[in-house]
Amino acid sequence: MNTEAPKQTSDGRLGDFLAEIEAVVGAKAILTAAEDLAPHLQEMRGLYLGDAPCVIKPASTEEVAAVVEICAKYEMAVVPQGGNTGLVGGGIPITSDKAIVLSLSRMNAIREIDATNYTMTVEAGCILQNIQAAADNADRLFPLSLGAEGTCQIGGNLSTNAGGINVLRYGNARDLVLGLEVVLPDGQIWHGLRGLRKDNTGYDMKHLFVGGEGTLGIITAAVLKLFAKPRDKVTAFAAVPNPAAAVELLGRCRTLSGEAVSSFEIIPRISIDSSVKHIAGVTDPLEQPHDWYVLVDLVAGIEDGSLSETMMTILSEAFEEELVLDATVAASEAQAAALWRIREAMVEAQKHEGGSIKHDVSVPISRVPEFLERAMAAVSERIPGIRPVPFGHIGDGNIHFNLSQPVGADKAAYLARWDEMNEIVHDIVVELGGSISAEHGIGRLKVQSNAHYKSTVEIEMMKKIKAALDPAGIMNPHKVVD
Amino acid sequence: MNTEAPKQTSDGRLGDFLAEIEAVVGAKAILTAAEDLAPHLQEMRGLYLGDAPCVIKPASTEEVAAVVEICAKYEMAVVPQGGNTGLVGGGIPITSDKAIVLSLSRMNAIREIDATNYTMTVEAGCILQNIQAAADNADRLFPLSLGAEGTCQIGGNLSTNAGGINVLRYGNARDLVLGLEVVLPDGQIWHGLRGLRKDNTGYDMKHLFVGGEGTLGIITAAVLKLFAKPRDKVTAFAAVPNPAAAVELLGRCRTLSGEAVSSFEIIPRISIDSSVKHIAGVTDPLEQPHDWYVLVDLVAGIEDGSLSETMMTILSEAFEEELVLDATVAASEAQAAALWRIREAMVEAQKHEGGSIKHDVSVPISRVPEFLERAMAAVSERIPGIRPVPFGHIGDGNIHFNLSQPVGADKAAYLARWDEMNEIVHDIVVELGGSISAEHGIGRLKVQSNAHYKSTVEIEMMKKIKAALDPAGIMNPHKVVD
Repeated sequence: MNTEAPKQTSDGRLGDFLAEIEAVVGAKAILTAAEDLAPHLQEMRGLYLGDAPCVIKPASTEEVAAVVEICAKYEMAVVPQGGNTGLVGGGIPITSDKAIVLSLSRMNAIREIDATNYTMTVEAGCILQNIQAAADNADRLFPLSLGAEGTCQIGGNLSTNAGGINVLRYGNARDLVLGLEVVLPDGQIWHGLRGLRKDNTGYDMKHLFVGGEGTLGIITAAVLKLFAKPRDKVTAFAAVPNPAAAVELLGRCRTLSGEAVSSFEIIPRISIDSSVKHIAGVTDPLEQPHDWYVLVDLVAGIEDGSLSETMMTILSEAFEEELVLDATVAASEAQAAALWRIREAMVEAQKHEGGSIKHDVSVPISRVPEFLERAMAAVSERIPGIRPVPFGHIGDGNIHFNLSQPVGADKAAYLARWDEMNEIVHDIVVELGGSISAEHGIGRLKVQSNAHYKSTVEIEMMKKIKAALDPAGIMNPHKVVD
Repeated sequence: MNTEAPKQTSDGRLGDFLAEIEAVVGAKAILTAAEDLAPHLQEMRGLYLGDAPCVIKPASTEEVAAVVEICAKYEMAVVPQGGNTGLVGGGIPITSDKAIVLSLSRMNAIREIDATNYTMTVEAGCILQNIQAAADNADRLFPLSLGAEGTCQIGGNLSTNAGGINVLRYGNARDLVLGLEVVLPDGQIWHGLRGLRKDNTGYDMKHLFVGGEGTLGIITAAVLKLFAKPRDKVTAFAAVPNPAAAVELLGRCRTLSGEAVSSFEIIPRISIDSSVKHIAGVTDPLEQPHDWYVLVDLVAGIEDGSLSETMMTILSEAFEEELVLDATVAASEAQAAALWRIREAMVEAQKHEGGSIKHDVSVPISRVPEFLERAMAAVSERIPGIRPVPFGHIGDGNIHFNLSQPVGADKAAYLARWDEMNEIVHDIVVELGGSISAEHGIGRLKVQSNAHYKSTVEIEMMKKIKAALDPAGIMNPHKVVD
């Protein structure tokens, strides 16, 4: 064990606790030095700073189970942590709690790839990008893809039901898992690593742990669904007159491609401007500026030119009907990458524009145009000069409705109005039957607002589930439901 | 109320109970005459005959809620029933219970179709075929399809997480629902009719009610996912040397079609023989007999001949490598229907071959060949002359492993060995990481064997969920978990 004294010693039994933990995982697997703890106690956007006497890094499912059992005995809460790329504080211990961080990062084995069953079995600590690469090596596709894929871990992806850019074609993380191995709050292990497409033998427990944000148990391994690797992909970047045209274009892409739209993203003009201005190598691919753009990927099993033809057919028909004002179709992988670079650069570019108040919302796809119109008007009325940057996965009805500060405004004063803006936007979202957290989860950030917007009936059901599976309340307390 | 006296009067308060129910739903919505009750108290295969003083048929969600509240007050159990096409006795009240049947059949409105959002909102009592037709009218596809679709109801489909023939491309019933409205065991209504592709606002409660077989609450309405209607479909019927070749062919179809395989079924020779023999209009489409066949559907968004070409490419390559021995590709919709008629006639044809002991199992797709080889050998060793009829959704690893009696054997004596055969087959299934109920559920039929094969940890979790959501135990008791 690290010789530096643990920071938190409010409980006199901490030494006994750590000794028992050490007997299970070994001294090297317990971090207690401040500089070792720091990266585990801070959320990446800097919104949350937590506290914990140690970070424990077990190497196996059995070690996780033993650690949890000891934690239960000492009434020490457990905050599971993957790549710590979450945006709602779900993986950060709350300072007032008596809690340790349990990092899954050492459990990073790919246990099995069964290409014939289109599955792979991976441990929670596997980095998403490594999983994608392993699937690719087996001539398969693991389609989950999102900004943090180089550092996020699959255990976290599953616990938060991650979304990303390929949901339209392949589903959320929830839809990409067939079986789970989970350490339960009492230290028992649920061996649920089934690789079956059909299994109706009782309640589907895995769907509680997926999206449960570590509040019901710790996912230690999973059987993931793989897909045939597309042999062809065509990327287009099209200017559209308004969001309603984007939604109409989506329907045509779905139909004519035979449901082979893997991504369908919306980008407002302001993002093109800021990306071109701030991010090296990004250029506007179209000659004239337009208000709105969509970025579309279609995929196919055969590379015979027919997919490009389909895309051209869709775009030219849409152009004639003025649903599309201008468009470019990538003629090479490099050109496709350049188009995607625009989309990826947006988040970084926005940082150069001052404070940004963020929303991760969804509404039915049919209501996206109304949502955008109403929400943009409402925030502009409250803060004249505010610059909405609504972008993202319009194909899933999921808009990252970010709001850049007015030019020249005071950043801190602007950010102080975060909750006020959230309330305006979320009220409209909920009125349209939408979600106040489409893909980032609840964590700490949205516990209160979730309780505000969800029905009492649903919140009470969630609490009953929590109490049933974690009666002592030691799993990631105060997250999701409080 | 019907004037005939209720059959079950063990509780003196039955009259009070019925009076309170009548005040909610009206006299016509309460069936008590023996001939009215009969069709609701018997499972379609005749395996279960139940008992209940009445069948209650509410007309709205509010009425369902009020009925459940009254049932809770009188400690009267509630057995929800849809089209009563289940095969495991899940919708039949157990005679020893004090229970009523709650039929959802009057709640059969399609509340909304939102073609732009690719969703429709339907009540539980909607017949599956009517939902398919309504989607089709809106130029959309609702892909759930199974033998009973002309009579089964969507509430039952969801409660049992129905599978069927299109799971490979579109998923199980579970994957086709975005939101639910549920009457909870205390009579509260959960209004969860969300039509969102992304919603990470807490535990995903709908996945407990889907597949919960009415033991946790009563699904009264659902938001279903729709898809673009395929513009082209190509059906092929191919003879393969063995199941391993079928699995290899599946992989090629998945890759070359770009994951557009909507069905992939396996059929053994014995089924062709009995269908041709017993079912009018069924003929063997190939010249020579072969041991195994697959029936394949590919779908596409454009009808330009390219899908047929893809199918021909797959088959001719497979033919050269002796993965396919002979094949025919339907040249018209009528020909495709004739090929599907073979598959659909099988169940009926088998009835003419005497007693049939049935299994609805799944294993990882990669293990299907081993499963078939081992299971067929094991049952033949135990009962010489037994005639295995393994058919079904090999694309999902789901085999209906039916066993026809030896020619000339005594039917009753053969059927008396049902449990013995189940044990042999299920032992092999579980050893291969499979499921003893792939798509039919647990109901009453498999409660004991499920408890036998599943880990104590998982069964205990299920019991905790049941106790948390239905502490009084009034929802469909003794089903799923006992």
